[in-house]
Amino acid sequence: MSPRTPTADRLAGVVPPLVTPLTADGELDLPSLERLIAHQIDGGVDGIFALGSSSEVAYFEDAMRERILEAVTGIVAGQVPVLVGVIDMQTRRVQAHMRAAERFSPAGYVATAPFYSITGPEEIERHFRLLAEAASAPVWAYDLPVCVHTKLGADMLVRLGSDGCLAGVKDSSGDDVGFRRLAALNRAAGSPLSLLTGHEVVVDGAYLAGADGVVPGLGNVDPAGYARLHRAAVSEDWAAMKAEQERLSRLFEIVFQPVGKVGPAAGVGAFKTALRALGVISTNTMSEPMSPIEGEAVERIRTLLVETELL
Amino acid sequence: MSPRTPTADRLAGVVPPLVTPLTADGELDLPSLERLIAHQIDGGVDGIFALGSSSEVAYFEDAMRERILEAVTGIVAGQVPVLVGVIDMQTRRVQAHMRAAERFSPAGYVATAPFYSITGPEEIERHFRLLAEAASAPVWAYDLPVCVHTKLGADMLVRLGSDGCLAGVKDSSGDDVGFRRLAALNRAAGSPLSLLTGHEVVVDGAYLAGADGVVPGLGNVDPAGYARLHRAAVSEDWAAMKAEQERLSRLFEIVFQPVGKVGPAAGVGAFKTALRALGVISTNTMSEPMSPIEGEAVERIRTLLVETELL
Amino acid sequence: MSPRTPTADRLAGVVPPLVTPLTADGELDLPSLERLIAHQIDGGVDGIFALGSSSEVAYFEDAMRERILEAVTGIVAGQVPVLVGVIDMQTRRVQAHMRAAERFSPAGYVATAPFYSITGPEEIERHFRLLAEAASAPVWAYDLPVCVHTKLGADMLVRLGSDGCLAGVKDSSGDDVGFRRLAALNRAAGSPLSLLTGHEVVVDGAYLAGADGVVPGLGNVDPAGYARLHRAAVSEDWAAMKAEQERLSRLFEIVFQPVGKVGPAAGVGAFKTALRALGVISTNTMSEPMSPIEGEAVERIRTLLVETELL
Amino acid sequence: MSPRTPTADRLAGVVPPLVTPLTADGELDLPSLERLIAHQIDGGVDGIFALGSSSEVAYFEDAMRERILEAVTGIVAGQVPVLVGVIDMQTRRVQAHMRAAERFSPAGYVATAPFYSITGPEEIERHFRLLAEAASAPVWAYDLPVCVHTKLGADMLVRLGSDGCLAGVKDSSGDDVGFRRLAALNRAAGSPLSLLTGHEVVVDGAYLAGADGVVPGLGNVDPAGYARLHRAAVSEDWAAMKAEQERLSRLFEIVFQPVGKVGPAAGVGAFKTALRALGVISTNTMSEPMSPIEGEAVERIRTLLVETELL
Repeated sequence: MSPRTPTADRLAGVVPPLVTPLTADGELDLPSLERLIAHQIDGGVDGIFALGSSSEVAYFEDAMRERILEAVTGIVAGQVPVLVGVIDMQTRRVQAHMRAAERFSPAGYVATAPFYSITGPEEIERHFRLLAEAASAPVWAYDLPVCVHTKLGADMLVRLGSDGCLAGVKDSSGDDVGFRRLAALNRAAGSPLSLLTGHEVVVDGAYLAGADGVVPGLGNVDPAGYARLHRAAVSEDWAAMKAEQERLSRLFEIVFQPVGKVGPAAGVGAFKTALRALGVISTNTMSEPMSPIEGEAVERIRTLLVETELL
Repeated sequence: MSPRTPTADRLAGVVPPLVTPLTADGELDLPSLERLIAHQIDGGVDGIFALGSSSEVAYFEDAMRERILEAVTGIVAGQVPVLVGVIDMQTRRVQAHMRAAERFSPAGYVATAPFYSITGPEEIERHFRLLAEAASAPVWAYDLPVCVHTKLGADMLVRLGSDGCLAGVKDSSGDDVGFRRLAALNRAAGSPLSLLTGHEVVVDGAYLAGADGVVPGLGNVDPAGYARLHRAAVSEDWAAMKAEQERLSRLFEIVFQPVGKVGPAAGVGAFKTALRALGVISTNTMSEPMSPIEGEAVERIRTLLVETELL
Repeated sequence: MSPRTPTADRLAGVVPPLVTPLTADGELDLPSLERLIAHQIDGGVDGIFALGSSSEVAYFEDAMRERILEAVTGIVAGQVPVLVGVIDMQTRRVQAHMRAAERFSPAGYVATAPFYSITGPEEIERHFRLLAEAASAPVWAYDLPVCVHTKLGADMLVRLGSDGCLAGVKDSSGDDVGFRRLAALNRAAGSPLSLLTGHEVVVDGAYLAGADGVVPGLGNVDPAGYARLHRAAVSEDWAAMKAEQERLSRLFEIVFQPVGKVGPAAGVGAFKTALRALGVISTNTMSEPMSPIEGEAVERIRTLLVETELL
Repeated sequence: MSPRTPTADRLAGVVPPLVTPLTADGELDLPSLERLIAHQIDGGVDGIFALGSSSEVAYFEDAMRERILEAVTGIVAGQVPVLVGVIDMQTRRVQAHMRAAERFSPAGYVATAPFYSITGPEEIERHFRLLAEAASAPVWAYDLPVCVHTKLGADMLVRLGSDGCLAGVKDSSGDDVGFRRLAALNRAAGSPLSLLTGHEVVVDGAYLAGADGVVPGLGNVDPAGYARLHRAAVSEDWAAMKAEQERLSRLFEIVFQPVGKVGPAAGVGAFKTALRALGVISTNTMSEPMSPIEGEAVERIRTLLVETELL
């Protein structure tokens, strides 16, 4: 079976990685999820990224992943495209997640390089080719060294794009120099890849460098802000883009308020705490072994929402 | 439910992490597995570690994990205890693997710290406590920073041991200084933990430092050698121990023969290639996206088997 | 003695870290240095950074450092301010370099965090305070984790700026998210620090984030390009800024042409090879144990100079 | 000039890296240094390593290095060989330190790989060859990735040994698997290198692996203990070796007593604090920007000295 052709319509713009609202006892909170998705679509997002890292996908059993996917695609109901994260250690496990997601007709699958086992560059490229062969929808590469501990090479990504194996890249590599180079190589190859940045506070710079859009965790909290930023970029109103980015960067300070927490316990925890303060979701419960943000940090997050005119 | 009490009989000695023989098309090769397990038990091992990293567990879907576990426990048939690796990203997914393994009555579960998501020290400790609460058999901590990207602290491990949450540690941290300190802290606490080293070529030093045994990937190839090494250590025949270690360290050079391969593609690939040369298993097939070792490296591996008197 | 007050005039704009032209036998090539400095000043730079990492300062004995400094300050002759790198392992050694440089009346000293020995955050802050106490000119912090293996915290930097111990930061941390946060904290504190980015290919994004200028190694080759980029930023002509950045990013590809070289052997080597092709310096000789770029890479660098309209 | 031939007599045994006793105001404390060296020689050491990392060499100006070297070699007065650390960033700076040390007729120079600038493997090998060409005494390689951020390859080290460019290796790499392989390769090449381990708490394992001796920072405190350990190893009395190592590993706990300190501030600080408690040196003063150990940690260090029968 040969690699599939990407869809004609290239995904771009604002595609927030949806957090997963949980009840106090850790179950999927459907009413909160409905409000959260309405918050996104009312905010003007261009797509939804389900089961991304911000969804706590790594913490959920397969059945819970499926429950979330069913709920998200049901609520979104085709209003915007839904990308689906298929996060697992190696090729076959990722393929299994793709098969499980197939019945929800995703607009694309988002997969990282293999992790846990040390994997060389040839195997990483083969991994993505095998995913593309097996996929019922376009495949996106998720460049996330902080979790995966390898950096995807720009040459490989553009080659996979040119070969029709990748439709785009979600770049959360924290490597702006590398992103610029990826964008240049992509342009030189006829732009086979749609390039989305995952770094909420430097989206303006990414647009200058050649990004097509953004996958902002912070977009859960303020999708309208990112939609304005994107429209400013599209219309090359760089001053408006910069101003919006400054406000959003200020808002991003919420993730630095928790004390003694790292990773998603701090970042996703802050998004949930802010969304609760905004009345969008009902709890800031996190998956075990994480604990929710409590105490003064909750108040400081509320203050930042006020300062950035969301409350 | 309170943490379970470790079994009275502490596992120690040689517990090889079994590789998974595959047919040329990637299916479980049962006849080879039978020969491989006979090779281990004839060699005098004290236990079998199923679904460890060397088994390519990260590459298999859940159904394949279960198939392997059913086959291994069926063939071993109680001749030695079987530890079961429950390798996954976060607590609930690990618990799911424990539940799936329960019907095979393992002697213990071996779990790493959470990975993929960044996880802080308090959450890592809570992770192991939650595993212990849910476990039907003793839990072992698997310290493997090269895959998991965190190092388990000695203080935490001994505390978890004293609280009955951990029965032992498989230390593949590559940190001999830390291992010595772990052994000293464990002794000072009354030795709640059984300590197994995972580093095949420095087992003699680990025994001096206080190891109770070894989980040698290379033991797949030469279980009898590790059994002799262990008996020499138990009888404090340090000269014999050192001599056996020297031969095994020479044998370990097989993992450095492949060119252009890293991680399990090189290491596990070399074990399989050697086992094929010894007539124990039928192919050296590796899971996708890895490819098997071919060409001159195969011949160099054979030469090393001759030099170390295995062929 | 209390920390000194930064000069009233804040350094900003384009401050290239000057490479050191060498004769074929490794001596300072004065005629080439004269042409190189003229190339910079004609290009419209706002300052010169002498003895930065790009100067090969780490490779030179103290006497050579002094020779370079004497030559550079003599040739510059006050046309633009000269910052002086005082690169060494720990506080006293850095102070010794400051004393040796004093007679050349530098506009400021640029110092990294301590390196080689592991140093904690309190000691790093004390290091900069001790440097400020001993300095005859403003001190700049050089954030360069790739060489120094610690990242300078934004809170510490702004605190040192507010206390008059630091005049600015040269940020080569590769952390654009951190830079944005540093810029925001600095602004909130009344902008005590001048912030210069060291990343040649994402200067436009850095300006959006709040940079005051740039220290571009590539500016050795094309100072006029960076001067145009800076002027576009100052006049908020973002479209012109982006266009100039694109051209310079294309030019930066010269550093990826050498095969089998890393670090300054590739990067500074490419700058020297390009400057030789432009007729500015006479050799592309590098300090031992580095070797100069030879073979096809030289031709590919020339081609890139043509493509970017420098040749 | 061709590389020099190593001296006939190969250095082995216990070679402590001497700490530098300082007066309260940071000057060299000569009376303490005399007592410290007498403590070493009375303890039965086989050599002294001056200006190693434990000496705080990275913190001293060149004049202070020379002062220390003059004092140490004067006091040792040929009773045992003196190795001299020549720690600096790149080849020429290291060569300058060798020239400065030449008049003290050292038994050898100890040099790391280049640091600060990123340096590739070919350049590292060339670095050591250039040092050997310029050296008036045998050169030792100091493998110290925690400071230098590269690991020296075993193949390269043995090749340099066989070519007469290196007399030995001080291995502080923390990689016991790599050390075993280095020892095996060295033996296979006719043992051109003398191999000294720098890891105080696993010296027994290193002797099993093939070490010729040890460079123990902790040997400053208890040289007699390490001399006993070495003699036990030489006479293959492995039980006595293990017992002595256990006591010394217990003593090493002094480095974990300081709170909020890392690197030499903790480790060397603990050695000095212990030596002060033993009456060998007068202060536990550390070089700026480090501060001395104070408070309860001092008492805990004293308790450990009592427990290990040194007080």
